Amino acid sequence: MNQGHRFAAPGPDVYRYPLLIRHLLQSAMDNRSTNEIVGTDGRRHGYAELDRRIGRLGAVLTDLGVRPGDTIAVMDWDSHRYLEAYFAIPMLGAVLQMVNVRLSPEQIVFTLQDSGATLLLFHSDFAPLVADLKGRLPLIDRWIVMHDGAGVGATSADAEYEALLAAEAELHPFEDFDENALATTFHTTGTTGLPKRVAFSHRQLVLHTLAIMSAFSMRPERQRLTTADVYMPLTPMFHVHAWGLPYVATLMGVKQVYPGRYIPDRLIALQRQEDVTFSHGVPTILQMLLGALGDARPSRPWKMIVGGSALAQPLHDAAAAHDIHAFAGYGMSETAPVVTLARLDSDDPDEERGRARLAGQPIPLVQVRVVDTEMQDSAEGELVVRAPWLTAGYGTDEAASADLWRGGWLHTQDVARICDRGDVEIRDRLKDVIKTGGEWVSSTQIEELVMQYPDVAAAAVVGVPDARWGERPILFVVASGHHPTLAAMHAHLSLHVDRGAISRYALPDRLIMLDDLPRTSVGKIDKKALRNMLA
Amino acid sequence: MNQGHRFAAPGPDVYRYPLLIRHLLQSAMDNRSTNEIVGTDGRRHGYAELDRRIGRLGAVLTDLGVRPGDTIAVMDWDSHRYLEAYFAIPMLGAVLQMVNVRLSPEQIVFTLQDSGATLLLFHSDFAPLVADLKGRLPLIDRWIVMHDGAGVGATSADAEYEALLAAEAELHPFEDFDENALATTFHTTGTTGLPKRVAFSHRQLVLHTLAIMSAFSMRPERQRLTTADVYMPLTPMFHVHAWGLPYVATLMGVKQVYPGRYIPDRLIALQRQEDVTFSHGVPTILQMLLGALGDARPSRPWKMIVGGSALAQPLHDAAAAHDIHAFAGYGMSETAPVVTLARLDSDDPDEERGRARLAGQPIPLVQVRVVDTEMQDSAEGELVVRAPWLTAGYGTDEAASADLWRGGWLHTQDVARICDRGDVEIRDRLKDVIKTGGEWVSSTQIEELVMQYPDVAAAAVVGVPDARWGERPILFVVASGHHPTLAAMHAHLSLHVDRGAISRYALPDRLIMLDDLPRTSVGKIDKKALRNMLA
Repeated sequence: MNQGHRFAAPGPDVYRYPLLIRHLLQSAMDNRSTNEIVGTDGRRHGYAELDRRIGRLGAVLTDLGVRPGDTIAVMDWDSHRYLEAYFAIPMLGAVLQMVNVRLSPEQIVFTLQDSGATLLLFHSDFAPLVADLKGRLPLIDRWIVMHDGAGVGATSADAEYEALLAAEAELHPFEDFDENALATTFHTTGTTGLPKRVAFSHRQLVLHTLAIMSAFSMRPERQRLTTADVYMPLTPMFHVHAWGLPYVATLMGVKQVYPGRYIPDRLIALQRQEDVTFSHGVPTILQMLLGALGDARPSRPWKMIVGGSALAQPLHDAAAAHDIHAFAGYGMSETAPVVTLARLDSDDPDEERGRARLAGQPIPLVQVRVVDTEMQDSAEGELVVRAPWLTAGYGTDEAASADLWRGGWLHTQDVARICDRGDVEIRDRLKDVIKTGGEWVSSTQIEELVMQYPDVAAAAVVGVPDARWGERPILFVVASGHHPTLAAMHAHLSLHVDRGAISRYALPDRLIMLDDLPRTSVGKIDKKALRNMLA
Repeated sequence: MNQGHRFAAPGPDVYRYPLLIRHLLQSAMDNRSTNEIVGTDGRRHGYAELDRRIGRLGAVLTDLGVRPGDTIAVMDWDSHRYLEAYFAIPMLGAVLQMVNVRLSPEQIVFTLQDSGATLLLFHSDFAPLVADLKGRLPLIDRWIVMHDGAGVGATSADAEYEALLAAEAELHPFEDFDENALATTFHTTGTTGLPKRVAFSHRQLVLHTLAIMSAFSMRPERQRLTTADVYMPLTPMFHVHAWGLPYVATLMGVKQVYPGRYIPDRLIALQRQEDVTFSHGVPTILQMLLGALGDARPSRPWKMIVGGSALAQPLHDAAAAHDIHAFAGYGMSETAPVVTLARLDSDDPDEERGRARLAGQPIPLVQVRVVDTEMQDSAEGELVVRAPWLTAGYGTDEAASADLWRGGWLHTQDVARICDRGDVEIRDRLKDVIKTGGEWVSSTQIEELVMQYPDVAAAAVVGVPDARWGERPILFVVASGHHPTLAAMHAHLSLHVDRGAISRYALPDRLIMLDDLPRTSVGKIDKKALRNMLA
């Protein structure tokens, strides 16, 4: 490191500012926001009270023996208490383990044990499950239940969150430590093997927060969170920091609404009651909101970042017709998660429509490459990334970690290309691409074209091994009415072959009708299950 | 540092992302902006060419023997070449020394020698000065002249910037290094002693850039730089990184206009020709623009951050009447510089008017306190700050560095209070506050009130020692017509005493008429010179 010409070493009093989550909270408080945090229990409080509740939670946990380096797990829906945990637990120097409550009981036991958590905060909705699993969680020796509204029944908890906070007279004096200390961990569930644990440091989450805000500053009002917005997460807070937006919303001092468990009619009612204007979620959530809205519209235009799966054009357009302005974001558990955000700054409405569904431009400090299997730049290939907020690996699984970081770039396992304007377009999952006749065929592209056929409610394409062609595509369809034939589907797809949109190798060999497509715990089509059906 | 429960050490391939200026440039290029950089020589080029020019400059400097840790000095007006130096020099691991060309030749020699610079890039306007000083700059052994338009005459340079770039076939492959490596140094000129050198690292400048963008994301369009804006600096680029905005503007990919030396009519012409919408500068610059505009208006509304000195209400209002929307920012050489920015989000126009001139709210990650001499919190007192981008000290002057960081906070030497809404209001320079009759009287507050009196063009108040009262205020006035009397001024100020705005101790003991107020090299009133007049 260069020290410049004749500079004395910094004196002992110079404050060497570490990038810590407590500094995000400090900046949030300096804004002196007069907005409210609307809690799941119907109560609401201001930012000064949020600060005090975080201070009290820090004191409660310290009284319970929590020390820097300990892991504390949380099982909850999207709540104001989860927001408090997002700050207080890391600010103690402890590690927040976010439990995916949609996993099977077996997997929940595995992830809790794997995290090393010694204290569990759980919502009373999970009290029966926790009672069942308790005997298999020997590392956890303190249990705190959180509940909304009226008193909770008997649980296996030692104490209740609100009672502990109410009884706490002190505010914990949070202190500084190394910015590389771990702040959060959680598990990512691939379609194979055990859930794998990823981890993020204070430095990483602070930089992730600033980079998202910086990206917002480069976008028009219709795609940014502003201080005039009302924020409501529609991504589970156990899922990749709810995409980092609770940290952003808090730093900005916006009004926040925590909806608890997602019940469509209640989400719509909350939108109206609190005038929610900014959310984020997977396509399935957006679909659910549209269903619950029916012919109605939200009380105010509603901006929504859509990620997790591709934002299909018909869904984008249907949402727009309901005054829900959806645009894509891209990231994954390993990336904290935000890597790219769509960027809508065209004056041409048709161009905008198309752009809203692209993964979009890398946010500041994110570097992306599209590479072939030899890590050479390629027009279409695997998307690999660098950013200051990517997980360094998967727990103790050194082989998987080395594979993730092969060649010094994080491998997304997504196939992408970069459009002229610098927008990333995700084409398919690497493992779902069908390699046939020497070409790569995007399964999602075929699915989108099949979906345009009348009465097709859902479609999935997987590749099966083929001695002559390498692989061959097989099509699964869920029909909403008339069942299409393979011949009719070939005729339909051939039109797109003729116009050069897809390869002739993309025509599926078989068509299988299903009543429903199998889905993973996060609502994605479970292609592994489909392949198993063919095996 | 906690390592979390059972996490393997990061593998050798994990990219440990350092916060480097080269990453800002990389992100800028990923935006694929189609905007232009308008140079001082009338030529213009796109962002891809900016990237190539930076790559060529890196190669040229490397060919000339520049190595990491070397210091390279630049003497130039606000130019596209300075922008290139902002990137290329630090990206080589070298240190960019920004030379304040408004200093005396003696001071220029001192600062260049003190910086340890071994190579000088200078604009041809300074060729005669450089020829004069060359013999006294033994450390510098390479001289490169930069000029606009037609060929430059004979200079003492070894080579010419554009010729070197044109002859360079290679683009330098910039590499990673420690984010704490120094990137920039320059000198701050107090009113006493020799200029003192401050320094900033890559990490500091990257965080400064992201924090400014994050602050913009929290502000309404009328006070943020957006991608639709056209940016033109009106703060010298040798002065505290032109407030950091060239890095922000480049990362955002906005159109940038570099005006060269500030010539009022040319600045107005450039505004019209390029449709400039965003600038920043000291009040004197704003005043100069209003003078050059006369009754005319800019071609588009023009946003301007005003700092360096207080933004007086009359100046703010006069600018607004010309469609120049000024709002205050606050910072200093030691702080990179941005600490606070006004925040206008009220619906009440009168409240907005008042707020625009407050220093405003700390930008994200900045912590501020107002303290007394014992570092205890105080309603009014010295503003002290912490942020990740503050200089660690002054060159090798350990005593001054220790004083700057007394008690673990950087001392601004400004007296401030924090308003209800969290806005910082700067009341005075600590050394200019007049301690009289047991009270602190703000010299700038008296000056503002005096300025409201008819025919007062400029006013300054300084304290002189007084056996009975500690200090007593003395008033200097520059009249634009009728000369006021001390009695008339007492009558005028007494109205403000009666309404409780100022203390009765604030009434000055003497009134001295001047033709002009003495000013420092950056255009501030030189109160030291005024005190000397009284000594």
